[in-house]
Amino acid sequence: MSRPAVHPVEPPPFIDGRNDVAPPRRVRMKDVEGMPGTFTGLALRLCQVIFTVISLTVMATTSDFPSVTAFRYLVAAVGLQSLWSLSLAIIDVYALCVKRSLRNPVLIFMYAIGDGITSTLTFAAACSCAGITVLISNDLNRCDINHCKKFMSATAMAFISWFAISPSFFLNFWSLAAQ
Amino acid sequence: MSRPAVHPVEPPPFIDGRNDVAPPRRVRMKDVEGMPGTFTGLALRLCQVIFTVISLTVMATTSDFPSVTAFRYLVAAVGLQSLWSLSLAIIDVYALCVKRSLRNPVLIFMYAIGDGITSTLTFAAACSCAGITVLISNDLNRCDINHCKKFMSATAMAFISWFAISPSFFLNFWSLAAQ
Repeated sequence: MSRPAVHPVEPPPFIDGRNDVAPPRRVRMKDVEGMPGTFTGLALRLCQVIFTVISLTVMATTSDFPSVTAFRYLVAAVGLQSLWSLSLAIIDVYALCVKRSLRNPVLIFMYAIGDGITSTLTFAAACSCAGITVLISNDLNRCDINHCKKFMSATAMAFISWFAISPSFFLNFWSLAAQ
Repeated sequence: MSRPAVHPVEPPPFIDGRNDVAPPRRVRMKDVEGMPGTFTGLALRLCQVIFTVISLTVMATTSDFPSVTAFRYLVAAVGLQSLWSLSLAIIDVYALCVKRSLRNPVLIFMYAIGDGITSTLTFAAACSCAGITVLISNDLNRCDINHCKKFMSATAMAFISWFAISPSFFLNFWSLAAQ
């Protein structure tokens, strides 16, 4: 498209050019572990589910989490994340059992969008909870009347689940761009 | 730099033959606005610089920001972000003035890594400040003894600068994957 049109006379260079442009695209990154439908991909999804569920449970079992907006938001964000990751883990298990490939461009696009949104929400929730936890424990020294350890654990688990979802997102996004 | 000089007379067949072998990879996404070395890219960088500097100034002018870890972290993060964006804006201005392309794979890789790190730090800082600001204003109703409006403004500016850096990061990352 952006190539200067140098058209002297005969078609041969044109045919030659077309052969060079088309084929090397489709086959790239075909078997990368960590993508949907691979064992590493499934392991990443299971990690996400486990850590989000732990984070959700720890935060939801503190008596005073509903009084702080950021803690309520964490529960909502990791709840959404766990549902999303669990759904994709089930699809991965199915794909591995019946040996089907999930390398469909539309599917990868949806995965990348979903992973991008859920990971951003989880990271935002983890950061806001971290800010408040540090405020309570370090800046105000009010751990005696708050469940600092539980808040810290829930926040740490949310961060770990974000670390686990990031490779999934970047692999899907990379694969989408490389197609 | 990478474009062949088109001299009128005899070299055409030779240049044409070479064009068919190498370039189909290199020229992809050549003119996408928002990439380094384009006017939209420069506009994005300037937006980032402006909003981070506003956020930094607003937060740094509150008297009690050093008492809260998250607010100190915001100052550090948007400070780093503003320096990074300013440097790249200067490079963009230079590239536009001398009409040079910045589409070097190594350069794009460094841009993508730098944008990824700075945008993550800025977003984390904005989220933690948002958590604390909402805690102070909505959950505790302590705006009478705190600079809620300033905290909110600084946080909002940090979010806007994150919105401005995200396209730069995704375009660079996409371009890196598409090469």
